[in-house]
Amino acid sequence: MKTIMIIADGIGGRPTDLDGETCLQVADTPEINDLLARRGAGGLLDPINNGVRPGSDTAHLSLFGYDPYEYYTGRGVFEAAGIGMDLTENDVCFRTNFATIDSDGNIADRRAGRISEGQDELEKALEELRSERFPEVEVRFKRSTEHRGALCLRGPELGGNVSPTDPHELGIPIPESSGQDEKSEKTASVLNDVTRQAREILSDHPINEQREKEDKLPANAILSRGSAKYPNLPSIEERYEVTSSVIAAGALYIGVARVAGMEFKPVEGATGTVDSNILNKAKMAVNELEGGKDLVFVHFKGADNASHDHDPEAKAKYIEKVDDTIGWLKKNLDWEKTHISFAGDHSSPVQYGDHVADPVPAMIAGPNVRRDQLKTFDEYSCMGGGLGRFSGNLLPMTLSYSNELPKFGA
Amino acid sequence: MKTIMIIADGIGGRPTDLDGETCLQVADTPEINDLLARRGAGGLLDPINNGVRPGSDTAHLSLFGYDPYEYYTGRGVFEAAGIGMDLTENDVCFRTNFATIDSDGNIADRRAGRISEGQDELEKALEELRSERFPEVEVRFKRSTEHRGALCLRGPELGGNVSPTDPHELGIPIPESSGQDEKSEKTASVLNDVTRQAREILSDHPINEQREKEDKLPANAILSRGSAKYPNLPSIEERYEVTSSVIAAGALYIGVARVAGMEFKPVEGATGTVDSNILNKAKMAVNELEGGKDLVFVHFKGADNASHDHDPEAKAKYIEKVDDTIGWLKKNLDWEKTHISFAGDHSSPVQYGDHVADPVPAMIAGPNVRRDQLKTFDEYSCMGGGLGRFSGNLLPMTLSYSNELPKFGA
Repeated sequence: MKTIMIIADGIGGRPTDLDGETCLQVADTPEINDLLARRGAGGLLDPINNGVRPGSDTAHLSLFGYDPYEYYTGRGVFEAAGIGMDLTENDVCFRTNFATIDSDGNIADRRAGRISEGQDELEKALEELRSERFPEVEVRFKRSTEHRGALCLRGPELGGNVSPTDPHELGIPIPESSGQDEKSEKTASVLNDVTRQAREILSDHPINEQREKEDKLPANAILSRGSAKYPNLPSIEERYEVTSSVIAAGALYIGVARVAGMEFKPVEGATGTVDSNILNKAKMAVNELEGGKDLVFVHFKGADNASHDHDPEAKAKYIEKVDDTIGWLKKNLDWEKTHISFAGDHSSPVQYGDHVADPVPAMIAGPNVRRDQLKTFDEYSCMGGGLGRFSGNLLPMTLSYSNELPKFGA
Repeated sequence: MKTIMIIADGIGGRPTDLDGETCLQVADTPEINDLLARRGAGGLLDPINNGVRPGSDTAHLSLFGYDPYEYYTGRGVFEAAGIGMDLTENDVCFRTNFATIDSDGNIADRRAGRISEGQDELEKALEELRSERFPEVEVRFKRSTEHRGALCLRGPELGGNVSPTDPHELGIPIPESSGQDEKSEKTASVLNDVTRQAREILSDHPINEQREKEDKLPANAILSRGSAKYPNLPSIEERYEVTSSVIAAGALYIGVARVAGMEFKPVEGATGTVDSNILNKAKMAVNELEGGKDLVFVHFKGADNASHDHDPEAKAKYIEKVDDTIGWLKKNLDWEKTHISFAGDHSSPVQYGDHVADPVPAMIAGPNVRRDQLKTFDEYSCMGGGLGRFSGNLLPMTLSYSNELPKFGA
């Protein structure tokens, strides 16, 4: 049988100023409710565990069935994998920003004026990055959107526990990185060398000369954070014996899924914002399942963006867009042979604008699900759902309904 | 106070062709329902965890309160303990089959025509098994039902991670075993020696000469699988400070309980099938409690057999037999001083015919239980039960209601 796991990022919330209802209650979601009422069961999901406030990366690991306390090494590796860098167990990765250093050598802007042009040329120039002290370490830099990018250091003896060179502060010099152990000390040394070298390369770069002429902040440094050694996850295929694809726009979600061995399928118009063409994602999901994949993981990001923007109307509106997409999926999937799970990866109340530990509403629907009495899908109705309250592991749960989960023991 | 834990193997399921109800809903279970309504509370139990598809061995460990990720080493040790072999921490055990090797040296039948006579003589002949390369390793073989048996290798330096000599395939030679580490390499070498030696001993055995005359497949080899080093579980008595017995027919369940230190009490007519005399098991349970035991674990196997046979009527009928037995227990136990838990060790839908990760209905009844509103015991009603959804640990939960559980911390 086929399996789809749909994560609507940050979909759970708390009562808002909109008549005291959550955004999920405010939104009109006939398709989701119908799917739940006719074929599903709901519940409340602690993405990692009750009392744990999840990050997006740790939450996704946990939903996929990987214990984040065992496997999580840091965000950098997922960002790097998410922007298409191919990684091995010898990589230590960082998220980076292009930043602006002033004439006193202090950080003037952590995002180089949200640079939007010329990053390809800067990336090209940074191809020569290399530590003189540790020339055997392979250094790779890749830009992403705006000021964002990733740095990967590859060597057999590199530790992942190093402090960031991005202090999240202005008016101070770039701090030296240090490592928590001997192998990480080596990584920190390479990072410090590379950070200095990048300043030299970037300071003289024509793109920055041009930016200064135009009164734009130069991108004359890179700041690194989120240090992470590549985590040796058993892949989804090794663990669950299924083939899988990821359909997402945000680098982090693509990255977690790629590190778990899912094949990334890019989608036209998918932007990771409220304006994303999520219908195209649904079409790609059907395409992947019909093309032979056992499992597709689909990530919708917009609800979380609206939450971070403290905008309940935008969040409710985006949820209605998700509902339309579920409606399209219902018409275009073989529902007798498909199980679908639908949930958030964490709650993101619009008032607070960030992740909280409140459990998220979750549902699983399909022919093998024992249906409960729920008719509507929201934070309150799911309190009484047949799935009860449970922690993580939404993916293996859904695979088991599809009769596609390997047994533990005999 | 006294405690009984009754596991009806594979009792949970999914809707069937019988009016869209589960077998537990189809079955008439007045005694179980009455016990739940008058003295109990119900819930949904993930035998190991949500999203984990349990084996029988791992599920029982988890229900007893042992983390199978910490303690599970493989099935062989439980099969060996279950057929009465006494084990120590130096044992590595395998499940075995008598098998038939053809004149080309290939496996012709993995069960030697389901041999049903002469196994005692073959077992006797295999007493001389011994590795010439590692004569210090003690080799023990014991037959069980039909073609089944167990092989135990005892030595201080033997690892448990070795590949099986049973390829689950026909038409190929017996594969050589190999070990995943140095100590397991030694085990594999002994296993390979013993496997070759068993072929020599069995090929010339009069029982097999007789079988060939009668056109029966000879039992001229043993195939081994389920390699497991003895797991160092703290015993039930060490962990919970109670004395305990196991009443079961299947070797695996007896074995898990014996390795956990329960005393096995054989019961006349207990077969581990739908025809088993489970009333005799109930009588033995009462006998054990009256004789001074604090805890009795009772295992009923038939519902799982009917599930594997894809037979919903047989499953429902067997559940009614379990219900009768619960009725007898209710009349013959001192209910003011006894807590009973009743659950499956996993769900086994008859359509699928194997274990799935769906949670199982579970109940605990007795004077100290906070009763809920449930009147019927099945997969649906238990969704709303007072025990909620919980993972493993049914035994220590029940012991605590009996005020017999040691405290963790001070």
